[in-house]
Amino acid sequence: MTQKQVRIGLIGVGFVARCHLYGYRAMPAVFPDSAALPVLELVCDAGDALAAQAAARYGFRRSTGDWRKLVTDRDVDVVDICVPSNLHREIALAAIAAGKHLYAEKPVGLDAREAAEIAKAAAKAGIRHLTGYTYLRNPLVGLAKKLIDEGAIGRIVHFRGAHNEDYLADPQAPFIWRCDPAIAGKAGALGDIGSHIIAIARHLVGEFGAVCGMARTVYAARPTAPGAAQTRAVGNDDEAQFLVIFANGAAGHIETSRIATGSPMDITYEITGTEGAIQFDGERMNELRLYSNRDPADRRGFRRIYAGPEHPPYGSFSPGTAHGLGFNDHKVIEVHELMQLVAADKPPLTDLADAAAIARILDAALTSAAEQRWVTL
Amino acid sequence: MTQKQVRIGLIGVGFVARCHLYGYRAMPAVFPDSAALPVLELVCDAGDALAAQAAARYGFRRSTGDWRKLVTDRDVDVVDICVPSNLHREIALAAIAAGKHLYAEKPVGLDAREAAEIAKAAAKAGIRHLTGYTYLRNPLVGLAKKLIDEGAIGRIVHFRGAHNEDYLADPQAPFIWRCDPAIAGKAGALGDIGSHIIAIARHLVGEFGAVCGMARTVYAARPTAPGAAQTRAVGNDDEAQFLVIFANGAAGHIETSRIATGSPMDITYEITGTEGAIQFDGERMNELRLYSNRDPADRRGFRRIYAGPEHPPYGSFSPGTAHGLGFNDHKVIEVHELMQLVAADKPPLTDLADAAAIARILDAALTSAAEQRWVTL
Amino acid sequence: MTQKQVRIGLIGVGFVARCHLYGYRAMPAVFPDSAALPVLELVCDAGDALAAQAAARYGFRRSTGDWRKLVTDRDVDVVDICVPSNLHREIALAAIAAGKHLYAEKPVGLDAREAAEIAKAAAKAGIRHLTGYTYLRNPLVGLAKKLIDEGAIGRIVHFRGAHNEDYLADPQAPFIWRCDPAIAGKAGALGDIGSHIIAIARHLVGEFGAVCGMARTVYAARPTAPGAAQTRAVGNDDEAQFLVIFANGAAGHIETSRIATGSPMDITYEITGTEGAIQFDGERMNELRLYSNRDPADRRGFRRIYAGPEHPPYGSFSPGTAHGLGFNDHKVIEVHELMQLVAADKPPLTDLADAAAIARILDAALTSAAEQRWVTL
Amino acid sequence: MTQKQVRIGLIGVGFVARCHLYGYRAMPAVFPDSAALPVLELVCDAGDALAAQAAARYGFRRSTGDWRKLVTDRDVDVVDICVPSNLHREIALAAIAAGKHLYAEKPVGLDAREAAEIAKAAAKAGIRHLTGYTYLRNPLVGLAKKLIDEGAIGRIVHFRGAHNEDYLADPQAPFIWRCDPAIAGKAGALGDIGSHIIAIARHLVGEFGAVCGMARTVYAARPTAPGAAQTRAVGNDDEAQFLVIFANGAAGHIETSRIATGSPMDITYEITGTEGAIQFDGERMNELRLYSNRDPADRRGFRRIYAGPEHPPYGSFSPGTAHGLGFNDHKVIEVHELMQLVAADKPPLTDLADAAAIARILDAALTSAAEQRWVTL
Repeated sequence: MTQKQVRIGLIGVGFVARCHLYGYRAMPAVFPDSAALPVLELVCDAGDALAAQAAARYGFRRSTGDWRKLVTDRDVDVVDICVPSNLHREIALAAIAAGKHLYAEKPVGLDAREAAEIAKAAAKAGIRHLTGYTYLRNPLVGLAKKLIDEGAIGRIVHFRGAHNEDYLADPQAPFIWRCDPAIAGKAGALGDIGSHIIAIARHLVGEFGAVCGMARTVYAARPTAPGAAQTRAVGNDDEAQFLVIFANGAAGHIETSRIATGSPMDITYEITGTEGAIQFDGERMNELRLYSNRDPADRRGFRRIYAGPEHPPYGSFSPGTAHGLGFNDHKVIEVHELMQLVAADKPPLTDLADAAAIARILDAALTSAAEQRWVTL
Repeated sequence: MTQKQVRIGLIGVGFVARCHLYGYRAMPAVFPDSAALPVLELVCDAGDALAAQAAARYGFRRSTGDWRKLVTDRDVDVVDICVPSNLHREIALAAIAAGKHLYAEKPVGLDAREAAEIAKAAAKAGIRHLTGYTYLRNPLVGLAKKLIDEGAIGRIVHFRGAHNEDYLADPQAPFIWRCDPAIAGKAGALGDIGSHIIAIARHLVGEFGAVCGMARTVYAARPTAPGAAQTRAVGNDDEAQFLVIFANGAAGHIETSRIATGSPMDITYEITGTEGAIQFDGERMNELRLYSNRDPADRRGFRRIYAGPEHPPYGSFSPGTAHGLGFNDHKVIEVHELMQLVAADKPPLTDLADAAAIARILDAALTSAAEQRWVTL
Repeated sequence: MTQKQVRIGLIGVGFVARCHLYGYRAMPAVFPDSAALPVLELVCDAGDALAAQAAARYGFRRSTGDWRKLVTDRDVDVVDICVPSNLHREIALAAIAAGKHLYAEKPVGLDAREAAEIAKAAAKAGIRHLTGYTYLRNPLVGLAKKLIDEGAIGRIVHFRGAHNEDYLADPQAPFIWRCDPAIAGKAGALGDIGSHIIAIARHLVGEFGAVCGMARTVYAARPTAPGAAQTRAVGNDDEAQFLVIFANGAAGHIETSRIATGSPMDITYEITGTEGAIQFDGERMNELRLYSNRDPADRRGFRRIYAGPEHPPYGSFSPGTAHGLGFNDHKVIEVHELMQLVAADKPPLTDLADAAAIARILDAALTSAAEQRWVTL
Repeated sequence: MTQKQVRIGLIGVGFVARCHLYGYRAMPAVFPDSAALPVLELVCDAGDALAAQAAARYGFRRSTGDWRKLVTDRDVDVVDICVPSNLHREIALAAIAAGKHLYAEKPVGLDAREAAEIAKAAAKAGIRHLTGYTYLRNPLVGLAKKLIDEGAIGRIVHFRGAHNEDYLADPQAPFIWRCDPAIAGKAGALGDIGSHIIAIARHLVGEFGAVCGMARTVYAARPTAPGAAQTRAVGNDDEAQFLVIFANGAAGHIETSRIATGSPMDITYEITGTEGAIQFDGERMNELRLYSNRDPADRRGFRRIYAGPEHPPYGSFSPGTAHGLGFNDHKVIEVHELMQLVAADKPPLTDLADAAAIARILDAALTSAAEQRWVTL
């Protein structure tokens, strides 16, 4: 292999780290012509023993129990941050100070202030950075963007977005770190998954002008462990929703819930324009629906477009339409983006500046809910 | 026929009157055991000539160009009001004064004040009355209600409702009376179709506690006629949406649009409970989807239930599941309800009291939008 | 009303007669400009008492217990035959001999021989006749036909058709007359419902060239009544299927079942052409899906077209797309066709000649199944 | 890493080889506890130069232009055959003779005779073998199997299966090796993709008893290259279909097409039982629909079950239901199966014996089509 090697230092080995690993592993099979290939150089978990175990299990060359060693390791090119939000700031600033590139999971930091601080430091240091807004990597988001930019649906009038999941729909589901604002931030479902649909809205419609919403903790306390009698108070929202006015005048509504019984992956966007409309449903992630009022009147209707080679970079996965990508393939695409960013300075779909902008919207939505009023961005 | 005959006096012969006629005509074939049968006694249109023409065309015994004659005609039992909202108050009060029963199209009156006045007069006079919230007559609304009442989805946490249509999606579509607040009321799309989804929300979830929303006229002016250069200012909302807190604590969102490109009949409700969920989409009006978390974990999912004989009064239309009802069948059911109301004093699904309650919600939504704040009901 | 009156003599008052009644009743509200209006003149049921009861119940002027009187009654213009197949021949021939027009439910007669005999007699007598292939009256069949005739999908390569229902899916469902070949004919599910999808195939693709199939009685015997210990042998097919070569060279497959657990109304057609494709699913009878390979490559897909005013005669029911027609609306359209046929000599979508052609296909399919070989038509 | 290493020798680097590579690459991230990990030891392509290039591109340690060297290479544990069918026999027999384990793409060999010869040799030699019937690896096939085995749908009455694609739907699409019977076998679409749905039918319903079908070359000749004037005769079927009687008495129909305009990935199965039904559609590969007649009568319906952790091995990919697997994930699962087979002797879902059984069905279907008669297996 004559390709450049990009040495990854991964911090944290939970759910999302596993998705990153999938991306690192599968990427070379999908993008053999990538400007660079990732190398699993160093992994950090809580303590040397666990870290060593993770290295063995996932195929890293080396391990450490101390993230400070990782961010300054001279054989690490990219620091990949897969830890809860409360640790983002310190780690990110240290990595930036060490001149490392950053691959940061969303939402970056505990709130808008932290996200802005990190983004500013990165910009000042000139390092390269990518924020992992997974669902933006779906090739059909690319198609939606292209259609909108081409004018296929005219001027955007309305945006309806949702990211609902059911991972805490069971009232007896135990307290997890995402319920703790000190670790996950004041935005609960809103920060965890609402941020994804906000990212998509910004990407497809544009900047947010003002929001007015509500946020609620539906299950006030949860068992500390499965079946435990002891409970712990949930400190952030189980569900949130808000009205939006976009800077370009479009109206919108965004909702999110982690207690949406029956909706394991309801990441939905419906964009109504003056001449057409676009619809997407995350439970059917390989389909985009397009309506055009330019079709003859007797045969107008939403057409169900399956992801295919015409929707880059789908063609790198398969030459056949509707073969279907999976959730983890988002991360394969994201890792490829990371390689192109680090090795060839190609800008990613979302970086720390986007993360900071999204964090401001999250804060505005929470303020709006707390004070029961519209908040201008 | 030994059944009682209920003599109808119809005022107005536009679109919705045609639907009523369908109901009057088809009802006896569907409900041969109805307590009464409608008789097309008297029709009123603008002027004697047009009225006579309508009588001939639609099979009424007699006609008149003067609605005052109709509401006092001694051979009329029920006054059926199918005229625009600005005429509701005067006609309804006169009919009530004459002791006639009322079949009133929605939304009753120009605003909450008028609706309340009419409802109060009717209650005082003791006449029988039915308000035509068409979509509530879908047998699947009955199933949804039964499931909720039985506890099949637990406690309701969230309601998402929409009634979007595209009848003014074309910016060149000419000005119609529904765009004129003096005729249709200050609520545009909100009053015309938003009222339907509000009616369903009230029926299934319960009373509204507070709302906060926005309402917009997207196309400020429209041609006065197809292709005309002259335009006329549109005086009410093309689209509106609002957040809701229901009296029982459930959260919700309701949206409506008459410019929803690609959505000719998007009357949607999605009700999330603590133990299940219900979904309905008006473009597939013969299906209700139900999710239950009591199903075994490996086979949980929304089941698509087709309307069938188990969902009264579907069985009066067909013994076969999924044979399918159509839009006009709503009115067949509604007319049957009217017959049972007038002849057997069986209470209807929606009457003038409901109309008044819905009108209050419409007013609150508009106030909230105008003043950009939450409004308590 | 200045319109011609067409006086109906109805024989039989079972399920399908109820659908005809719906048609007769609702038609004038939907088609006020029809060349004629139906009059419920005379009804015949088994015995004078039952007939009188039916007349009172359904609003006929007169009744009789003797169909021979009905077919020769001088105030009857159209004889409407809604009795089981074994009675078709005798009644139809008598009605033709009396110079009556015929409205005959499908499949006409017990077999191809009887259907041909009736069709021949009708042709010779010059009476007007319509055969009630209900589902052909869906406006979307009209759209499919238009699209095919226009070349929108190119040359037809493949047809897949099904009409599956579940009305006998329960093995304990009692024996009904449709299980008795002496009454319903040798074709069980095939004759009852398979004939519908054959009718659609003929209409959209063309004449059948050869068939090869199988037909099976899955539940050999059924209780004679609900819960009865005594059973009776089922004498015709519960399910049947066959391969087809159409005269124009297209290949196809047609299947039918009356024991299709979970499929109450699976009347499906999928037509694949060289440049596009069409799909229809009877459980969503207001949608047709169209694929065109002339769309740009990055946005090809089946578009979901809702029935609307562009698809005659839908506009007579509603000015709004996706308002939705119901099962009984097929018969409203069919009755209008009957009126136009009788009063204005406009040819119907299906007449006795079609019935005879379909009966020949049914016979060929059964022969093919019995002799396990291809049969040329 | 203490896991066993299984050294792969891959022959052929076309489309399906790319899918295998994806599987080899991603597997360790998904199944870190696998009994073994694959090592990309040796790759063979047509000529040393191309092979070296493939090795560099895809990360193999070594390369060779001669498959005979690969199959006898002492550092190869598994020979992975990704070449066209005409080369299967010679390579497989040589690999077996050399004592290598086999990972053989479907359909194995040119016909039933070759498939049987290879299967027999493998059995005799005692080597381990897996045949890559990709779609069987979908976790939802596992759920379908479990549901059937549990009796959730009662006794199977009917199976409808299809594998339609559109990769040659364009008549101007050039001739490919799959059109040449000398390379791909006499079964065209039938062998390439029809074999997949046959594999699923066998897995879920059981052995085939008899078949009767037809097979057609719709486009007799194709350009030799894109836009070329010169054409070459297509030597096998573009579409095929057949009726089936399964050994257990169930009836069925199977169809396949490579010219199915609009259907890029229509791999469908619909299984009707006496007490329920199962439906799957490959264009929505993360959903299975289940109907049970044990649900209460007023809420029966097909439930849409999304793949989730309850459906092994989905949980190894994600803890979240409906996160979605993609086409290439089938091969990740398949490679894991291969590792468990080679390192722990766990039997795979499909091996050479299955391949031989399927090849017999393909031959029977072609014979049946050629001789226009039923063929017993």
